[in-house]
Amino acid sequence: MKTNTELLKKFGCKVQAYRKVLGLSQEELAFRAGFHRTYIGMVERAERNITLSNIQRLAEALKIEIKDFFSE
Amino acid sequence: MKTNTELLKKFGCKVQAYRKVLGLSQEELAFRAGFHRTYIGMVERAERNITLSNIQRLAEALKIEIKDFFSE
Repeated sequence: MKTNTELLKKFGCKVQAYRKVLGLSQEELAFRAGFHRTYIGMVERAERNITLSNIQRLAEALKIEIKDFFSE
Repeated sequence: MKTNTELLKKFGCKVQAYRKVLGLSQEELAFRAGFHRTYIGMVERAERNITLSNIQRLAEALKIEIKDFFSE
């Protein structure tokens, strides 16, 4: 079964949108969530198949709930 | 930052609950989603930090939306 690229792209767009609401750069968000400074860019470009615990860290850093990433 | 064990446990419980609604064994669900037969057990016991694309495969096999795993 193939990796769901569409889903990863959609997720990356959501991350970018929520990040911009907070006026954060990719590096600032990475710092807040405890990731390497290049990690957010990779997630936003759908280059990473992020794990559930990293999704949680991102949600916390963006001050949202996990489900907000997956609602329309 | 620590792995969010509570979150993985909560996720595992949701997987189990949705699986039982469909009357599937762990092995049957694994087969439907294209995973190794032991994988669902590991997810339900919170022993795996599942990736986003595998969350999607599970949701499809359980005939739910990803957001259903994360709503209260």
